Amino acid sequence: MTYCVGLKLNKGLVFMSDTRTNAGVDNFSVTRKMFTWDVPGERVITLMTSGNLATTQSLISLLEERSKVATERSPSMLELPTMFQIARLVGSTLREVISDSHAEGQEASSKFKASVILGGQIKGGAPTMFLIYPEGNFIEVTDDNPFFQIGEAKYGKPILVRAYDPDMSFEDAVKLLIVSFDSTIKANLSVGLPLDLQLYLQDSFEVSDKPRIEVDDAYYQAVSSSWGDALRNALAQLPSYKIN
Amino acid sequence: MTYCVGLKLNKGLVFMSDTRTNAGVDNFSVTRKMFTWDVPGERVITLMTSGNLATTQSLISLLEERSKVATERSPSMLELPTMFQIARLVGSTLREVISDSHAEGQEASSKFKASVILGGQIKGGAPTMFLIYPEGNFIEVTDDNPFFQIGEAKYGKPILVRAYDPDMSFEDAVKLLIVSFDSTIKANLSVGLPLDLQLYLQDSFEVSDKPRIEVDDAYYQAVSSSWGDALRNALAQLPSYKIN
Repeated sequence: MTYCVGLKLNKGLVFMSDTRTNAGVDNFSVTRKMFTWDVPGERVITLMTSGNLATTQSLISLLEERSKVATERSPSMLELPTMFQIARLVGSTLREVISDSHAEGQEASSKFKASVILGGQIKGGAPTMFLIYPEGNFIEVTDDNPFFQIGEAKYGKPILVRAYDPDMSFEDAVKLLIVSFDSTIKANLSVGLPLDLQLYLQDSFEVSDKPRIEVDDAYYQAVSSSWGDALRNALAQLPSYKIN
Repeated sequence: MTYCVGLKLNKGLVFMSDTRTNAGVDNFSVTRKMFTWDVPGERVITLMTSGNLATTQSLISLLEERSKVATERSPSMLELPTMFQIARLVGSTLREVISDSHAEGQEASSKFKASVILGGQIKGGAPTMFLIYPEGNFIEVTDDNPFFQIGEAKYGKPILVRAYDPDMSFEDAVKLLIVSFDSTIKANLSVGLPLDLQLYLQDSFEVSDKPRIEVDDAYYQAVSSSWGDALRNALAQLPSYKIN
C-alpha cells in the first residue's frame, strides 16, 4: 500500500507521499512515489502514484521518455498547453500500461491497478490538481473537495476533514500532513517513513522546497510524540458524558 | 458497513455500535447491532455484529432460540460456565450460518461473512472480550490489545490508539468513543446515527446503562461540533514546520 496526499491551498499546492512498497510482509523496501517535471518560469508538474509498482514505474518511464527523447516528444508533458491535457495524457498512458499487462494474458486485473495524483501549474493557468483513476478518467480539485488522497487513505482522513483550511500557511499544512501521515503509519504496516514533501508556491513556476523527511527527522519525531498529548488535552476540553 | 467498538477498561467493559445497514446507497435503514443477554447477579453477555445482515440476524436468532426454548437449551449462552465456551458457541454458530448459505448453492461466499465482538462476565471469571471471525475462530482481548473494532474501523482507529487508557472512567471512555464514531460518520456514508451504548461495571453482573444516542442527542452534537475546534487547537500547540 501507499499513502499520498495533495492539498490545494490559496497559497499553492502541497504534496506528501510515503515511500514504502511491499509484496506481502516479507518483501518491503523504500521507493519514491513523487515525481516532478519542470520548465523553470513556465511550468511545474508533480505526480504521486499508488498501486502496483510495476504499473507505476512503467507509467513514469513512459512519461519520462516522452519528455526527453525529441522524436517522441509529441504529446509531451513539457509541451502540452494545459494541466487538463496533461491529465488526459497521464490517464491514457496509465490505462495503456494496465491494459498491456492484461493483453499479455495476465490474470487478476485488479493487481495491475494504480491511481495517480497530478498537480501543478502552467503559465496562463491556475494551479490545479487531478485524481486519476486506473480507468484513465479523472476528477479535478474544487473548493468543496480541496484535497486528494490515494492509497491507505482512511486513517488519516478525519484530521484532514477537520483541520484543513484553504488559507493555511505552508508551515501549518506540513504540520497537518505529518499528523495525518503519523496517524496512518501508527495504524498500518504498509505505510512507512521516509516521507517525500513538495511545496509549490502559486505563480512561482519553480519547486520551492522538496525535502525528504527521514525516519530520524527531529521535526517528525517531535510532532509524533507530542500529538498524543495534544489529542488527550483536546479530549479533556470536551464536555463530559453524564451517566444516568 | 457498520462500526462497532468494544473497550476493556479496568473498571469494566464499554460497547458502542452504530445502527446503519445498507445494500448499495439506496436501500438503507436503522437496525440494532448490539444484543445483550443476562442472568442478573450471575452473568452479562453482550454481542455486537458486523457484516451481512441476513447472517447476523440468523446468528442472533439461533442464539436467542437456544436461550429460550428449554428443549434446545444445551449448549446455551445462559448456561455455559465460561466466556471462552460462549465464544466457541458463537463462533461455531456463526460458521454454521455462513456455511449453510454456501450449501444452498449461493455464490460470492464473502458476501455472507460477518464478524462479532463478544464481551461480558460470568460469576467466577473476569470480564473479557473476544473478536470472532467469520471462520468461527477468535482472539481474546489482552493488555497489549485492549479494544476491538469491527466494520469500518480505520477512520476511528487513530484516536483510540492515541487516547485509550485502561484507567479511564466510563464518562471519558464514552467521550472517546463518540469522537471515534463521529470521525467515522463524517468520513463514510455507511456508518450512521443513532448509536447504541452499553456500559458494564466489573463484578456488577448487571447492565448499568444502555442508552441509544439519537441523531439529535445534545451531548453528541456538542462533542461533534466542538471536536473540530479542539483538534485545531491541538494542532496549533505542536511545533511549527520550518521551511528552508
